[in-house]
Amino acid sequence: MVDNGTHLIDLADLSRDEVTALVDLAARLRSHPEPAALAGKVLGLVFFNPSLRTLASTQAGMAKLGGSSFVITPGAGTWQLESRLGVRMDGACAEHVREGLPVLASFCDALGIRAFAAGKDLAADLADTEFRAMAAVVPGPLINLESAIAHPMQGLADWRTLDDLGVPRHSRFVLSWVNHPRALPLAVPATTVHMAALRGHEVVVLRPDGYALPPEVMQRARDAAAIGGGSVTETTDRAAALRGASIVYAKEWGSPLHYGDATAEAALRAPLAEWQVDESWFAGSAADCRFMHCLPVRRNVAVADAVLDGGRSVVLTEANNRLWTQMAVLYRLLRG
Amino acid sequence: MVDNGTHLIDLADLSRDEVTALVDLAARLRSHPEPAALAGKVLGLVFFNPSLRTLASTQAGMAKLGGSSFVITPGAGTWQLESRLGVRMDGACAEHVREGLPVLASFCDALGIRAFAAGKDLAADLADTEFRAMAAVVPGPLINLESAIAHPMQGLADWRTLDDLGVPRHSRFVLSWVNHPRALPLAVPATTVHMAALRGHEVVVLRPDGYALPPEVMQRARDAAAIGGGSVTETTDRAAALRGASIVYAKEWGSPLHYGDATAEAALRAPLAEWQVDESWFAGSAADCRFMHCLPVRRNVAVADAVLDGGRSVVLTEANNRLWTQMAVLYRLLRG
Amino acid sequence: MVDNGTHLIDLADLSRDEVTALVDLAARLRSHPEPAALAGKVLGLVFFNPSLRTLASTQAGMAKLGGSSFVITPGAGTWQLESRLGVRMDGACAEHVREGLPVLASFCDALGIRAFAAGKDLAADLADTEFRAMAAVVPGPLINLESAIAHPMQGLADWRTLDDLGVPRHSRFVLSWVNHPRALPLAVPATTVHMAALRGHEVVVLRPDGYALPPEVMQRARDAAAIGGGSVTETTDRAAALRGASIVYAKEWGSPLHYGDATAEAALRAPLAEWQVDESWFAGSAADCRFMHCLPVRRNVAVADAVLDGGRSVVLTEANNRLWTQMAVLYRLLRG
Repeated sequence: MVDNGTHLIDLADLSRDEVTALVDLAARLRSHPEPAALAGKVLGLVFFNPSLRTLASTQAGMAKLGGSSFVITPGAGTWQLESRLGVRMDGACAEHVREGLPVLASFCDALGIRAFAAGKDLAADLADTEFRAMAAVVPGPLINLESAIAHPMQGLADWRTLDDLGVPRHSRFVLSWVNHPRALPLAVPATTVHMAALRGHEVVVLRPDGYALPPEVMQRARDAAAIGGGSVTETTDRAAALRGASIVYAKEWGSPLHYGDATAEAALRAPLAEWQVDESWFAGSAADCRFMHCLPVRRNVAVADAVLDGGRSVVLTEANNRLWTQMAVLYRLLRG
Repeated sequence: MVDNGTHLIDLADLSRDEVTALVDLAARLRSHPEPAALAGKVLGLVFFNPSLRTLASTQAGMAKLGGSSFVITPGAGTWQLESRLGVRMDGACAEHVREGLPVLASFCDALGIRAFAAGKDLAADLADTEFRAMAAVVPGPLINLESAIAHPMQGLADWRTLDDLGVPRHSRFVLSWVNHPRALPLAVPATTVHMAALRGHEVVVLRPDGYALPPEVMQRARDAAAIGGGSVTETTDRAAALRGASIVYAKEWGSPLHYGDATAEAALRAPLAEWQVDESWFAGSAADCRFMHCLPVRRNVAVADAVLDGGRSVVLTEANNRLWTQMAVLYRLLRG
Repeated sequence: MVDNGTHLIDLADLSRDEVTALVDLAARLRSHPEPAALAGKVLGLVFFNPSLRTLASTQAGMAKLGGSSFVITPGAGTWQLESRLGVRMDGACAEHVREGLPVLASFCDALGIRAFAAGKDLAADLADTEFRAMAAVVPGPLINLESAIAHPMQGLADWRTLDDLGVPRHSRFVLSWVNHPRALPLAVPATTVHMAALRGHEVVVLRPDGYALPPEVMQRARDAAAIGGGSVTETTDRAAALRGASIVYAKEWGSPLHYGDATAEAALRAPLAEWQVDESWFAGSAADCRFMHCLPVRRNVAVADAVLDGGRSVVLTEANNRLWTQMAVLYRLLRG
């Protein structure tokens, strides 16, 4: 449930009805502003990793609801924070998250934390071990702004986008791996496949050999599909995957087979430069097939200029919806 | 025109009447605060380069009008942003301004961007090519917080300062080159000569050989002088320039002859250490001649302590007027 | 006196009655929020050094009183600032505090500055020479957010915490040196011994040989004890110090004997790793003896996990009280 005191760590923390309620609330706040809804409320933001959309939209969202925010950046302006338990802290970190996070939480009404995957231990990252250890010391409302395996704010924004575009529930939604200069985390693909399955799509995960999403991620997505009335399959066959697709959602991620081994991962990825979305990908898709990406995206590596600058791309709508869906989450967490 | 939706990139985007209206509005907001004028409005600030006055005064100004702001710093807290077109993004930049800027603009009511000159290609910088390419993807109100060739917020603040001091329209305004450890951009001198010419001063640009401002800059200033009723000349003769001067406005800039060639520029500059303003400069000036500088300034390199700490210096007034003139711009852009 | 225009640099700037009035006001603002008390007011924050609690709590505190704030970080986002007088600025610093600080002050209603000890010249740091030189160019309200020798915001928060816990005025308050990988400044121990003495405690400073606080610090604390009705002694005898203690306040600081000499200081400190607070320290203390620390703290270097995670620790309360006591200071400075 999304109410005061809740930790919103994963889209799977929410029922389908709770997700649709948040997505609907986002649209309501967009059309019917409530500029005093969170007057006097303060959101604390902790960014262990860089950000553009999240950093801007969380602050703008609080402001649009009458609240305010502050930003803490461990390693820049604030010292590095330790998160391991039981360690003798004689290294680079001057403070432990067991002090730092409850202190920050005590200054504000809700905390948002971004902490990307450490990318060394797949099982630990799949279990979101580090983020959940941090969450365990945050007493009040907490929002996950991207952890090792979950990016629920992105999932909500993408759902809002699909609703805005009127993309039918049972249409084909292709989540495709695309190329990137280095291995990226699994948080967005894991969230996206879950979101699309829960919404009720015919979800196809298209990826080269070696880039299958972990079984735990696929199983959770299939569980979501069972609730949402959709399906989840995976393939390496691009033409088959894209046939009749209503959505091509491109995302970069590292091979789970070589998790934490950058050299082996790069070798596996080296021949895959053609996994870049260009107009040819849409030859067999639905005529109005849309291109989605959570951003940031590397032009002419993951996707060609022509697609991003063309009429299929809805990446700016997705990004803008981060604002409204996060406002909905904050509204629910801080007003109930 | 300065109205909702406008891009304010250069002082030359405004008519003389529009400039004086903004400068007058700044004084009105200073004497008659409007603490709720921009309630609920959000200003997004993108700093590609460091800042003190601009960073502080834009945020303070929004707050004083009841609005709020957020700050994005590519390369620190946010990844680096690419601005070249058509490039294959396999380098340091994770996102293109063609996505990043419209996304940020979509979160707020106006965007302010600071992006100094690249300093490699004089023609490109004179045309403000990079800033105008960024502006082209920003749909809403946009404020230039210093680009390659323009710093309109400084020009407005300096005009406000001249009005505050009662400096007569046709008095002599000397823009003098001063020494600095490295070549600095042309944005402030170009803006200053334009501003003073448009206000109607007898403008004299005083600079050593090799530091003449580019003809394009001088021509624009002469066009402004034709409107403002003033004149623009240039000289290397310090005594002649300063004779009867009401204002000495010091500024550092790199030689346009060696644009992008730091070694050659440094060699040309090496013998010019005496181009540091000290009290001797005011021997033939008007008795009440004021010293202006946009700040930051290197003490005892560009100007002697005695001048900065003495009664002629109005640098703190200029800096403070950044607040009020920017508030006027924001007020006009966001309220019409 | 704490009124509009005041510089609050040191706890010793305040009478005991003024301190208790601020500490009481903090409790009142906690129980009876005044969300519009500082509406329209702007706090400028200048951080020459990293921060977590101070950075977050000052911004959150202004927001909770209806005001707002901006943050300037010289060396990150803003260029480095020079503070030496008379220097020829041809090095790394692009601006002098003699311009930078009055400019920032002119944009806001109060300025907060954090500038740690340079740690080279003990006499200069004991006199807070650099901070007081900066304060001299700030015309309006100024709050010290930790200088070379003073951290008044921490002292107020700790006093509020002692009141919250009902720790009796004449009880034993042990300020103990604890281990740290490098020499830390004297600001917190100097403030703490002063605060506890002024509150009226039987203050014992427990420290190894070579770590006696400077005579100037001890004398000021004794002067405060004379006002507060307490006492101040020092010892190397841990058992004697801790006998009957109501408070163990742990703090790391560098040896004043080797000020500015990191190598000699490290050699003196090398055998002192056992100066880490663990449960054995409380064998002879009062049964309800509390553990205090200003944070950040290095776990299992300065204090054992078991103490921090146990019932004696009040470090989170101390940190949270930073919020309320700073709100009290801002309230008094900006509303009178």
